Amino acid sequence: MTRFYEDVELGRQIELGSHKFTRDEIIGFAERFDPQPFHLDDDAARASLFGGLCASGWHTACVWMRLMTEYEQGLREDLVTSGLPAFGFGVSPGFRDLTWPTPVYVDDVISYSVQYLEKRPLKSRSGWGLVVHQDEGVNQRGETVLQMTANLFVERREG
Amino acid sequence: MTRFYEDVELGRQIELGSHKFTRDEIIGFAERFDPQPFHLDDDAARASLFGGLCASGWHTACVWMRLMTEYEQGLREDLVTSGLPAFGFGVSPGFRDLTWPTPVYVDDVISYSVQYLEKRPLKSRSGWGLVVHQDEGVNQRGETVLQMTANLFVERREG
Repeated sequence: MTRFYEDVELGRQIELGSHKFTRDEIIGFAERFDPQPFHLDDDAARASLFGGLCASGWHTACVWMRLMTEYEQGLREDLVTSGLPAFGFGVSPGFRDLTWPTPVYVDDVISYSVQYLEKRPLKSRSGWGLVVHQDEGVNQRGETVLQMTANLFVERREG
Repeated sequence: MTRFYEDVELGRQIELGSHKFTRDEIIGFAERFDPQPFHLDDDAARASLFGGLCASGWHTACVWMRLMTEYEQGLREDLVTSGLPAFGFGVSPGFRDLTWPTPVYVDDVISYSVQYLEKRPLKSRSGWGLVVHQDEGVNQRGETVLQMTANLFVERREG
């Protein structure tokens, strides 16, 4: 079920699944990693620019990572059996243009996706290729809440 | 103790404190957000490109966010009383060039910092300014493990 660099299909948007951000989960993440008032407290959030309790942007990105990892590793049987088997292995040299255009409020349901934009063999690392992907989270109203572009190293079949 | 846009001092590297990444914490974060074998299992990690169990890059970024937030909000008395009081409020429109040049292994101690690179009043949002900051995490051997650049909205004193 391993997918290689050669199998990466460019241009197709792959749905990774969705996630509901509950109040408890928003506050729990914020207490640990992003203790700003508008992620922790309803009253403070209402008085803020956001107008209501909302999730840390890092929280929304980490949930994308969770779903992407499950997809890449074939842990999601629904995706694997839909003809999109997972990568055997992926290492990311980094992300760029990580933005949060719209806040994620309590009980918003975010649908995540990935789209592979380009790929090329890595000259510096024989047997591997570089794949560029664009990642997105969209809420139940169709508003984009997370957008980023990233590079991924993927093994080549004829490595 | 509130600090405003006008108080942002450019060019000075501000130390945000350090964090030790224990095995339990690395695995706990990975189980929740980044369940790749090299973040979860010693044997799998040894057989991977990394050569040993290492933290999710998102984990190392989230710890930076924690320390940065504590600094921004004046929760860190050591930093506040050192003459660097915190911002009253910060909203980030996003990050760019988020990279993890070196893995963070078990029991590595990462020292985090922020440096303000530039600032300008926001035309689109009266009373606010845009501040660009560069963020870094460095391990106990002086190797950079996290680097990113970000924008931050900060309230102006004469808003």
